[in-house]
Amino acid sequence: MKKIYNFSAGPACLPEQAISSSIESIKNFKQSGMSLLEMSHRSVPVVDLFEETTNNIIELLNIPKNYSVLWLQGGASLQFSMVPMNLLPLAGSADYIDTGSWSAKAIIECEKFGKANVIGSSKEATYSFIPKDVQISSSSSYLHITSNNTIYGTQYKNFPEINNDNTLLVADMSSDILSKTIDISKFGLIYAGAQKNIGPAGVTLVIIRSDLLELKYRDIPTMMSYSTHASKDSMFNTPPVFSVCVVNETLKWLKQLGGLDSMANINELKAGLLYEEINRNTLFKSPINEEDRSLMNVSFIFDNNKIDDKVFLDFCLARGLTTLKGHRSVGGFRASIYNAMPQKGVEVLIETMQEFENRYS
Amino acid sequence: MKKIYNFSAGPACLPEQAISSSIESIKNFKQSGMSLLEMSHRSVPVVDLFEETTNNIIELLNIPKNYSVLWLQGGASLQFSMVPMNLLPLAGSADYIDTGSWSAKAIIECEKFGKANVIGSSKEATYSFIPKDVQISSSSSYLHITSNNTIYGTQYKNFPEINNDNTLLVADMSSDILSKTIDISKFGLIYAGAQKNIGPAGVTLVIIRSDLLELKYRDIPTMMSYSTHASKDSMFNTPPVFSVCVVNETLKWLKQLGGLDSMANINELKAGLLYEEINRNTLFKSPINEEDRSLMNVSFIFDNNKIDDKVFLDFCLARGLTTLKGHRSVGGFRASIYNAMPQKGVEVLIETMQEFENRYS
Repeated sequence: MKKIYNFSAGPACLPEQAISSSIESIKNFKQSGMSLLEMSHRSVPVVDLFEETTNNIIELLNIPKNYSVLWLQGGASLQFSMVPMNLLPLAGSADYIDTGSWSAKAIIECEKFGKANVIGSSKEATYSFIPKDVQISSSSSYLHITSNNTIYGTQYKNFPEINNDNTLLVADMSSDILSKTIDISKFGLIYAGAQKNIGPAGVTLVIIRSDLLELKYRDIPTMMSYSTHASKDSMFNTPPVFSVCVVNETLKWLKQLGGLDSMANINELKAGLLYEEINRNTLFKSPINEEDRSLMNVSFIFDNNKIDDKVFLDFCLARGLTTLKGHRSVGGFRASIYNAMPQKGVEVLIETMQEFENRYS
Repeated sequence: MKKIYNFSAGPACLPEQAISSSIESIKNFKQSGMSLLEMSHRSVPVVDLFEETTNNIIELLNIPKNYSVLWLQGGASLQFSMVPMNLLPLAGSADYIDTGSWSAKAIIECEKFGKANVIGSSKEATYSFIPKDVQISSSSSYLHITSNNTIYGTQYKNFPEINNDNTLLVADMSSDILSKTIDISKFGLIYAGAQKNIGPAGVTLVIIRSDLLELKYRDIPTMMSYSTHASKDSMFNTPPVFSVCVVNETLKWLKQLGGLDSMANINELKAGLLYEEINRNTLFKSPINEEDRSLMNVSFIFDNNKIDDKVFLDFCLARGLTTLKGHRSVGGFRASIYNAMPQKGVEVLIETMQEFENRYS
């Protein structure tokens, strides 16, 4: 079978080792004689699995002791609501930086519970940069950012500095968490849908400073309260057991690789090679402000309109390179090269771009 | 390896065929050369998977054309809130029948959005029966029932008749959906966490009469609105792709078995054999009102207090029969014999009960 390199923006490619280990879990989980798919979340092996997974992410991200780790459902889209429901006082306000479709959706959900001040936006420039010159209000409960923007291909290289004690930093890190070391202590809350760097679809990571679990501004559905899930170690109700198992296998792979500093070096190398080719290749260019280019989602377009996008996409597909089409809202191409994309995949893409240049320029 | 029979109340045993097919999907989904765990939900094979799964459940449950099928996350626990958020007018009221812990939790969530009238409860009798003599108010937007009660082991054999046009019948069918044929047209909305008869943990089924998608009583989070998910064929955001695949394999197994009438016959046979043994065996008895005994969760207790529960549980475990402990809130024993529990498993349990009787009576 031909080797396929899957450049999907998410759900996205996973480490081969994580996939094969998860198959073993389905066949016979920890010598229980049962498939993990049919095991109670109250059983000792599954409770141990959750504890191990949490400990692995604490170790990898160096999460301080005063933070809680939650494994939830509903993706970032549900977090867009849970964040203001839990962190925004009645008639309170929060600052948002609008860096694309995901930020925009988060803003809409916040407005249902209070005031969302959009203190920066690159919308007018088709989200081709990260707004940096922003004024954070001390009356804001939190500043919300999207750390990496899958659709446009931008990424925060440095997080905004907050110079007051009232405003928390909250980040949707769905598409670049675990790609590098970050200082968790700068954040009040971080959330991330799993289906890029953490694992498969179906589980959502939340890292929350534990004192924030005490906040209770309004009477919200039990399932929407972070404290519900924290008080039951993410087992208030039946959690997505198998997805968490694949997460754990992915985290074990990251640890074996040497942790997040090693991963960051690999990510910089992979993205560096690809951006270098985009710059060099006479047919392609990047639409994104240079300093804000994402190491996870590399978007590029034809330098002129003479060739139809589909010609290049078919050219790639014939070489086993899939899902390189840019998001329907921007067009062009997007190579999502998350943690699990091997360097070899990027190299094959670069060779394909060169071959395409020889053929069509 | 010794054959294990897993009597867990959920996540619970799945058809062996569904488990092995799902492993193939992880290895190479539909000859794509990729694992289903890493495939985009926007890819053609995954969109096709969702359509096939929906069509299979429509066929099995004979769902009328004026209903929508949704594949969501968050389990029944999130539905406890979504139902009143979507179906209850401002300052409206709904009727609830309290048949155990799950109903009680649903009532608490309803009270956050309107008035929950508890029109029947068996709480004082430790939920050992289904209240039938209830007065449904015509001013209630809906009557909510829990069709099967995993913790206590009761089940509706006939659903309440509603004799007015204003009140919808809403059911949490998490633990007995797909166990028999039901008349969907009697219901406004049915919901069910998958992890008993439908598939693995991580996906929630909602069947809603499509005209109810138009209701908009309050400004709710986008993710909490049924119409959000219906308008995008359950792909508003990234759905739990792999869980849905296992669901589909489970549905295919049910179809091969001959559908829900065949399944119902098997379930009646299995439960009949087990209840017969509980009646006959001098050591055990059922704490549940005879006509309300669940065909899914068979609870039983010692007829006297001379033997510690643990003695029987260890006796079973040594014979490969696991997770027979009653829920922590009631004690005793509980054999969950959902669709996928083979008749052989029930027979081994019965033999074990007889062997235990010979040893200890």
